[in-house]
Amino acid sequence: MTNVAILGTGLIGSSVGLNLRKIYEKRPKDLVISGYDKYGDVVSRAKSVGAVDRITSSPIDAVSDADMVILAAPVLAIEQLVQEIANALPAKAIITDTASTKTEIHRWVDKYLPEHTGFVGGHPMAGKTETGPDAAGIDLFQGARWVLTPRVNSSEPAVTTVQNLAKQCGAEVMVMDPEEHDSYVAAISHLPLMAATALYSVVRASQAWPELSLLAANGFKDTTRLAASDRDMAYDIAVTNSSNIVHWIDRYIAGLVELRGQIEGTEKSNENLYRLIAATQWEYDLFRNGKVGREEKGLSDTKDLEPGMMDFIAGGWVKEKLGQMDKDAEKRREQTDLERLQRRDV
Amino acid sequence: MTNVAILGTGLIGSSVGLNLRKIYEKRPKDLVISGYDKYGDVVSRAKSVGAVDRITSSPIDAVSDADMVILAAPVLAIEQLVQEIANALPAKAIITDTASTKTEIHRWVDKYLPEHTGFVGGHPMAGKTETGPDAAGIDLFQGARWVLTPRVNSSEPAVTTVQNLAKQCGAEVMVMDPEEHDSYVAAISHLPLMAATALYSVVRASQAWPELSLLAANGFKDTTRLAASDRDMAYDIAVTNSSNIVHWIDRYIAGLVELRGQIEGTEKSNENLYRLIAATQWEYDLFRNGKVGREEKGLSDTKDLEPGMMDFIAGGWVKEKLGQMDKDAEKRREQTDLERLQRRDV
Repeated sequence: MTNVAILGTGLIGSSVGLNLRKIYEKRPKDLVISGYDKYGDVVSRAKSVGAVDRITSSPIDAVSDADMVILAAPVLAIEQLVQEIANALPAKAIITDTASTKTEIHRWVDKYLPEHTGFVGGHPMAGKTETGPDAAGIDLFQGARWVLTPRVNSSEPAVTTVQNLAKQCGAEVMVMDPEEHDSYVAAISHLPLMAATALYSVVRASQAWPELSLLAANGFKDTTRLAASDRDMAYDIAVTNSSNIVHWIDRYIAGLVELRGQIEGTEKSNENLYRLIAATQWEYDLFRNGKVGREEKGLSDTKDLEPGMMDFIAGGWVKEKLGQMDKDAEKRREQTDLERLQRRDV
Repeated sequence: MTNVAILGTGLIGSSVGLNLRKIYEKRPKDLVISGYDKYGDVVSRAKSVGAVDRITSSPIDAVSDADMVILAAPVLAIEQLVQEIANALPAKAIITDTASTKTEIHRWVDKYLPEHTGFVGGHPMAGKTETGPDAAGIDLFQGARWVLTPRVNSSEPAVTTVQNLAKQCGAEVMVMDPEEHDSYVAAISHLPLMAATALYSVVRASQAWPELSLLAANGFKDTTRLAASDRDMAYDIAVTNSSNIVHWIDRYIAGLVELRGQIEGTEKSNENLYRLIAATQWEYDLFRNGKVGREEKGLSDTKDLEPGMMDFIAGGWVKEKLGQMDKDAEKRREQTDLERLQRRDV
């Protein structure tokens, strides 16, 4: 018999529950999932969709005989949960979480839980616009990355168990330090969240919003979609990863200032602006077509360049777009651009 | 017999062609669509998918007997096209375009075409990530806004014809001045484009990109999707609407600076940050649920507020999130927040 406690039964917690049910589909009676949520209706819905088997009225009830505890609440709520369950946790229990930031989570675990608690931090990088148990599904984690942040003293069984959970949910596991995780997600997840929030906010504040909202097409909706993120999740992320996020907002502002400078007072032949836009589009196409990770050689590796790439670096696109250029100046520019493009990736 | 010339047979031009074919599906022989594109393979594909009937090797050939001319090339290419067709245009021809900016288009029409040319500017606010004739479809404009910018002296038949074309394509027509159009789309369309371009660009430039690209989930992909926009289209937009775009980038940077200021060094009870995030999310939900245009009363109209709204304005969410607050201070804050929230919309 395996007892699992899910504390926080929203989109992520319920999706993990549904996946656990699937893992045990051939021996359903060997698994009991106890669910707790601060909001009674949320845990009721989780039971209705089959994500938990029994509803508990306190986190302590949920964990009292647990083999595994999954903390799936918003980040700041986890501090309280960890304190509450500290004395009720069975020694056997393996504990993980699904929070968007990891440094603070580890700090609270170190502070409130016994030293040898089998804790392995986790962050499934999955989500969607809809929230809550009704949006949960067994396919939510399919193909997603699931970052694990073991403690220095995490036992091998704890790491293996949490790793297997992530894999059985269909995710690909990446292991890193909590601090490393938080600096990465600041760029790839929290900056987009803040960028979308600010973008929606400034456009919404316009006097012309009634007209603007009518004109909003998919481009605006996609770019600002993250502004619909759960407010508690977004706030907790900002609070628990503030210095990394501020760092990336600063880099983003610098990028916008650069782009703004190229656009301002632009004549029809602003080569730098065209190159900036074209280079970004071209790199984005590589990314969109699946060139990710270390195998993504990028612009710094000119050996394997396809013809289209060479054409770009040698200024083919630019020449075509902006008209005939002075031959000598072009040669100088080729050299400079190549160096500049290479620097982007080194 | 109706002769239509489509100059530029990419995604938009080909989608208009397919819609025209559908409009004439009961009398197919009464319509001939002549297609021209700067790129031979693009117009060949347009013919293959049935978006044009005949391929012409020059814009002049395409328009020589045209009843209607549709300029569907990137903005800057239209200046050249307008000059080329100026002397070949039949007096009967009604001309429209589909470009993303309108002020410059009108300037070129005024400059190069005869005074009484039946021109009505147009901008179907539709698009998708894929480009070219193979991505075209009759449903591209379904439910989209299609802005018309008539000239001061546009004839009624010209306006009606172009309006009918847009409606038959499934779009909803909005009429405005070219300048008004350009200031609106700068906020709702061009700012998101530049925001996505800068966002992708700064994250891509990180040394950690190999790891970041592996961690990128739907949030990052959606927020940066517009960075994949056609480079010529994006560049042309920047060049022909630069002052409006710079204005909106400045507002956006100011919004980011404000958000950054709230996040930096944040303690666990930064009420202003929570309110900023929660207000944006709440307003976004209204928008996402279809509250657009004048009927969208927003926060300034407190008469019809739902209970949830009052709860928010009175600080219910915030109180719950951030804990008990001093009663007097709360009352003062309620007043201030209400005023601040009202100012957002007036």
